[in-house]
Amino acid sequence: MQILDGQFVSRLIKERLKMDAAALVSEGKKIPHLAAVLVGNNGASETYVTAKVKACAEIGFKSTMLRLDDSVSESKLLSIIEDLNGDMDVDGILVQLPLPKHISDERIILAIDPSKDVDGFHPVNVGKMVLGSPSFISATPHGIMLLIEHYKIKTAGKKAAVIGRSNIVGRPMSILLSTNTTPGNCTVTLCHSHTHNLKDICAESDIIIAALGKPEFLRADMVKEGAVIIDVGITRVPDATKKSGFALKGDVAFAEVSPKCSFITPVPGGVGPMTIAALMKNTFTALKRKY
Amino acid sequence: MQILDGQFVSRLIKERLKMDAAALVSEGKKIPHLAAVLVGNNGASETYVTAKVKACAEIGFKSTMLRLDDSVSESKLLSIIEDLNGDMDVDGILVQLPLPKHISDERIILAIDPSKDVDGFHPVNVGKMVLGSPSFISATPHGIMLLIEHYKIKTAGKKAAVIGRSNIVGRPMSILLSTNTTPGNCTVTLCHSHTHNLKDICAESDIIIAALGKPEFLRADMVKEGAVIIDVGITRVPDATKKSGFALKGDVAFAEVSPKCSFITPVPGGVGPMTIAALMKNTFTALKRKY
Repeated sequence: MQILDGQFVSRLIKERLKMDAAALVSEGKKIPHLAAVLVGNNGASETYVTAKVKACAEIGFKSTMLRLDDSVSESKLLSIIEDLNGDMDVDGILVQLPLPKHISDERIILAIDPSKDVDGFHPVNVGKMVLGSPSFISATPHGIMLLIEHYKIKTAGKKAAVIGRSNIVGRPMSILLSTNTTPGNCTVTLCHSHTHNLKDICAESDIIIAALGKPEFLRADMVKEGAVIIDVGITRVPDATKKSGFALKGDVAFAEVSPKCSFITPVPGGVGPMTIAALMKNTFTALKRKY
Repeated sequence: MQILDGQFVSRLIKERLKMDAAALVSEGKKIPHLAAVLVGNNGASETYVTAKVKACAEIGFKSTMLRLDDSVSESKLLSIIEDLNGDMDVDGILVQLPLPKHISDERIILAIDPSKDVDGFHPVNVGKMVLGSPSFISATPHGIMLLIEHYKIKTAGKKAAVIGRSNIVGRPMSILLSTNTTPGNCTVTLCHSHTHNLKDICAESDIIIAALGKPEFLRADMVKEGAVIIDVGITRVPDATKKSGFALKGDVAFAEVSPKCSFITPVPGGVGPMTIAALMKNTFTALKRKY
């Protein structure tokens, strides 16, 4: 059993991007610039955005963090995005979701210039991904594909089960794994809340992407010997033994599942860091496409 | 075993659209207007475009057919599309594919105003379909969903195998059948040229969408009792007994498969007519969205 070390691979990718950014500086060119918009005071959102801004600093990208009060109006937020779209220095824009209830996520995403949509949430980027055209692939699925690529995991002709059909993880993963690319060419079954016999489907699969957000959902009896397991879940579970009062749990019962696997991602340190690396890569690409 | 009579359901849909168009006339409003662009002299393309224009006439829609020589330049075609985009009277634009080799299908599709893209090929429409936002769903998958809906076929929790991952049929079918809608909520496995054990996957499926373009590929031993079979294939096979010299064959060996099915589409008269009906529906929607 080999751990898919997202922390390590993410660092490699970021080191590479750091060199690329330094090369731009030495050529007298502008560096990539990510603008992150955070609305309100959601703790998890704050953690995510902070990590993204920190990653920019680490690798020599410029970042701007716009903090807005959760009373901000939709029209005000739209006008801020309009300004970021028009700002020649800004290459990538991300608006941390979820937004307060009085603001439509959809309208906000549609307002972002697709060529700056480094989160890959705009329909035109989703559509291009489906059609196999160059696009921004949203950070979590993109990060998972980079991880699979790094470890040279064979995917062609393999049976893959994707559990969870969210627009930001499950659905795009099902698409990316089934396209005629490397990695890709899996026979993918997309599973969700209406799926019957999920246990059997998983037990027949060579690759399982668990992205349903239920701590320790995937048990050993659902996994076949030698399977590749990617755990996208990350849930805070109360834990009195921790200083923080909680532990982070994935969707996979790691202790019992890992001995059966050929490859498995840990939580934390698996998919999470890859998401950040993929976002940085997208931001660099956004700038590069201008040249 | 019940035949899914695409001819009949298509006629119902068209009758309804005819009444809707007549209502627009009586209200003094403009009627839907489809502009179809045909480049070159491909026999099949000519047949398809003619059928679409004829359907418009039948139901009281306006249509314009633009025939262009296959020597037309890409830039000329782009400027024609620009004109159609700007023409307030035109609601829907379709450019019959494939185009001559010197023209990029992708560039042409990207040039069509997404709000007039009644073929649903523009990335923004594909992306919106994935995200579950209102969009134009491309005519063949849309037609199949309308057929399933008409016959009230239960899909939630059913296992569906989609064979073929083309951008215009297999891929969107796999997405539509797996979304949280009615019809929908299937557990979909998308199969393709790299799939192993296709026979087993099919034999376990409640619903099979055969969209690979291989005449009579799906045999009785690949189908379980009571399955629902949708045959998207339509291939001309030489047949000396026919006046035309050829017969139209689907991807399903109808004679041996149909006795095992609960529902099955014939070829011709199944998916084909539904494609036209769906295109007409999209054209009507394109106009309606302007009001």
